[in-house]
Amino acid sequence: MSKRTMILGMQLGNGYGSQPMAWKAPGVDAANYANFDAHVRYAQAAERGKFAFLFLPDFAGMSKAPEQEAPMLTLDPLMTLAAIARGTERIGLVATGSTTFNEPYNTARQFKTLDVMSHGRAGWNAVTTSDPLVAANYGQEIDARPERYERAHETIQIAQALWGSWEKDAWIKDQQTGQFADPDKIQPINLQGRHVASRGPLPIPPSEQGQPVVFQAGGGDYGLGLAGRYANAVIGATFTIEDAKAQRNAVRKAAVDAGRDPDEIKYFAGVMPAIAGSKREALDRRVALGREVFPARVPYLGAMLGLSLDVSQLNQPLTGEQLEAARPSPFDPRSQRAYEVAQEGWSIRDILAHGVIDYHPTPVGTAEDTADHLQEWFEAGAADGFWVSIDVYEDGIDTFVDEVVPILQERGLYHSDYEGTTLRDHLGVPEQYGQDPRLG
Amino acid sequence: MSKRTMILGMQLGNGYGSQPMAWKAPGVDAANYANFDAHVRYAQAAERGKFAFLFLPDFAGMSKAPEQEAPMLTLDPLMTLAAIARGTERIGLVATGSTTFNEPYNTARQFKTLDVMSHGRAGWNAVTTSDPLVAANYGQEIDARPERYERAHETIQIAQALWGSWEKDAWIKDQQTGQFADPDKIQPINLQGRHVASRGPLPIPPSEQGQPVVFQAGGGDYGLGLAGRYANAVIGATFTIEDAKAQRNAVRKAAVDAGRDPDEIKYFAGVMPAIAGSKREALDRRVALGREVFPARVPYLGAMLGLSLDVSQLNQPLTGEQLEAARPSPFDPRSQRAYEVAQEGWSIRDILAHGVIDYHPTPVGTAEDTADHLQEWFEAGAADGFWVSIDVYEDGIDTFVDEVVPILQERGLYHSDYEGTTLRDHLGVPEQYGQDPRLG
Ligand SMILES: Cc1cc2nc3c(=O)[nH]c(=O)nc-3n(C[C@H](O)[C@H](O)[C@H](O)COP(=O)(O)O)c2cc1C
Ligand SMILES: Cc1cc2nc3c(=O)[nH]c(=O)nc-3n(C[C@H](O)[C@H](O)[C@H](O)COP(=O)(O)O)c2cc1C
Repeated sequence: MSKRTMILGMQLGNGYGSQPMAWKAPGVDAANYANFDAHVRYAQAAERGKFAFLFLPDFAGMSKAPEQEAPMLTLDPLMTLAAIARGTERIGLVATGSTTFNEPYNTARQFKTLDVMSHGRAGWNAVTTSDPLVAANYGQEIDARPERYERAHETIQIAQALWGSWEKDAWIKDQQTGQFADPDKIQPINLQGRHVASRGPLPIPPSEQGQPVVFQAGGGDYGLGLAGRYANAVIGATFTIEDAKAQRNAVRKAAVDAGRDPDEIKYFAGVMPAIAGSKREALDRRVALGREVFPARVPYLGAMLGLSLDVSQLNQPLTGEQLEAARPSPFDPRSQRAYEVAQEGWSIRDILAHGVIDYHPTPVGTAEDTADHLQEWFEAGAADGFWVSIDVYEDGIDTFVDEVVPILQERGLYHSDYEGTTLRDHLGVPEQYGQDPRLG
Repeated sequence: MSKRTMILGMQLGNGYGSQPMAWKAPGVDAANYANFDAHVRYAQAAERGKFAFLFLPDFAGMSKAPEQEAPMLTLDPLMTLAAIARGTERIGLVATGSTTFNEPYNTARQFKTLDVMSHGRAGWNAVTTSDPLVAANYGQEIDARPERYERAHETIQIAQALWGSWEKDAWIKDQQTGQFADPDKIQPINLQGRHVASRGPLPIPPSEQGQPVVFQAGGGDYGLGLAGRYANAVIGATFTIEDAKAQRNAVRKAAVDAGRDPDEIKYFAGVMPAIAGSKREALDRRVALGREVFPARVPYLGAMLGLSLDVSQLNQPLTGEQLEAARPSPFDPRSQRAYEVAQEGWSIRDILAHGVIDYHPTPVGTAEDTADHLQEWFEAGAADGFWVSIDVYEDGIDTFVDEVVPILQERGLYHSDYEGTTLRDHLGVPEQYGQDPRLG
């Protein structure tokens, strides 16, 4: 195949799914939050679908008391990926980790261990963490962006230098000659920043891909600067093809500005498909999942449309007067889509079931509808691939893998098998060994 | 069985064994440093021997360039134990972690995740870290003991409070009523120390044993204070039954001083057995393993005996004159044993093969000789059990499990199977839920 194909990654959160009420959806084991067999099973399902990577988000804290909703994250992303590494063979393993609330040596060590353990499948989604609740768990406050991102640059530079502190062929391990390693090819790094520092070396040999891949998620100028310099993959947050194209171009330009080949960064658009036998069934799936959370979202939807809406109207569509008065908010990029859906005459409940308040676009309908969405975005040059967020893992991953993936494959848009063994292979980005020549 | 039986734990280091040259011993795969299949296989062998726990040491650094000797540690203890948790069912999983170079929230989170993942088998060997090489990897220096141990107290208190931040029955997960958790039973901890602080709660429910077990290794007054207050297991470093009895009593007294039942702390003596078909074969095993390191140890042995020895005498015993002039050094607790072995007329090479410079006593001979050693110490009240350090894992664990364990079982000194499922069960110490009543 010489045709360019799309790359898929899968969000893996709390063991239930990306909809807040997934923990009590039919067929879901309510104990999955603490059940690593389930996490491994979901990873294996994604691997069956030839996904390039799993992506585990992270916040070191609890955003609200989990009275009705489960926490949205796995207990610990790195520990979970170590478990998953042992139960999978090909799929990439990307964990989010904070550059602010971890020592670079510890981050470097654990990600490199995951990389070696998984035979070159690890990635690090480096985030600076902006939530004061997280900071409080470390007895700290959130610094302003310039400080946070300065520390992020230092932390990533130190981590990458530690990862490269054994050169490619440093590990001799020759039992005949008795040479374990070549000391000339294992050097301290001696990096001293304003926030963090490390001497090194890290006592870990290269993995099959050299070292872990750096991911960056979310935009902003500071994020772009980080991505352009270090990342091989960026997860975006956009709601239209035009925005995604612009974001992808900005990421590629940031790479060029940092002296890199723009093809070394792959840009992923998010998608949160709602899939069933028909559009109505797909909406019903989301209505059932949203029952408890939709009422509280009605006023928010109103604000997106410039209207004052309340829960009494949940099962009705907007009136003609309301539709006429509606003005999509310029401050929320999701408003235009909400406005279009409202104009189609759906009830408020069904408008919400269209995922108009979710974090990424939601194609609603059959597997074919989701495939069409991915094809349209991909062929428009809006993304190199997609970050797929499944509503309920228990059945949703299988549905995607067994129904959407074959359509994409038939259309020549998606690979029929892994071409290589490492995450860098899957992303089509180069191996990385030794020290960054731009340092030092 | 009402008779008290000994508890065994196994040191698991770098994938080769606890002798520096184990990486090139016959039958050993030189790639095991990076091979987690091997680590899991060794863990499974220890589990076959009904060991209560694996113990992974830790230093966040490389003590010397690994030119001829492999680094003595696994790539990362927690990640390794996550992998091992997935391949074992009963054995306890104890990782060493520094109280100085980790944030308490991160430590608490990862150990609790291991505890949940393993269904209640996790333990934390809390160390303050005294090696400046490690500190340099964090851009820091080593503080004096009072500072280090003050931070250690704060860190352990925060970790235990975070572990207890979900009460025993906080996690409702009732899909019918829609209640995920009981918010009244999940509380912030709000601990503020001089060095570290955390708000909490940690979003992780209790494990089958409530929370991880705290271990402490090595003595000193500061270490004793830590052990007495928090630990359920202490690994000692002693070379005689009398010293071990004294250390065990000191540990038990420290528990009483902290208001605890002394039986809640189990004391483990270290042992590094050399086992073969005969004493000569056991010595030969160690001679083969020590070939490269023995020459450099001759002067050190001399110092232990008050003699000036050099490598030219490696294959000869001490002369009559030397034996008469020898004075065991009062500064090294191993000297007396070295002196006794020397008097038996062994060559210097064979004296070293007796393990007289190793970190723990080395019974040399058959499986029966090792069983005799363990029995003698155990029946003298010198230990509740043993921390077994195997010279070469590849064959040495099987030898211990298949040859020493059955002898101990026949003598009624060792259990024939696990009585419970959690590490606390294996240690015979109580479950731990919620907050320490002494705090607060
Ligand atoms: C797809 C996606 C996933 C993200 N995952 C995380 C995450 O897991 N943890 C986190 O702290 N932030 C996450 N973020 C947030 C961003 O990394 C970033 O913090 C955000 O864009 C705010 O930027 P700022 O830190 O410059 O304010 C994610 C963003 C996107 C778009
Ligand atoms: C059996 C045993 C195992 C130990 N393992 C470790 C270890 O893995 N990492 C570490 O930093 N220290 C380890 N230690 C050292 C002690 O925890 C402690 O640092 C030492 O007794 C010095 O005490 P100090 O910190 O008060 O100077 C170990 C000690 C013993 C006896």
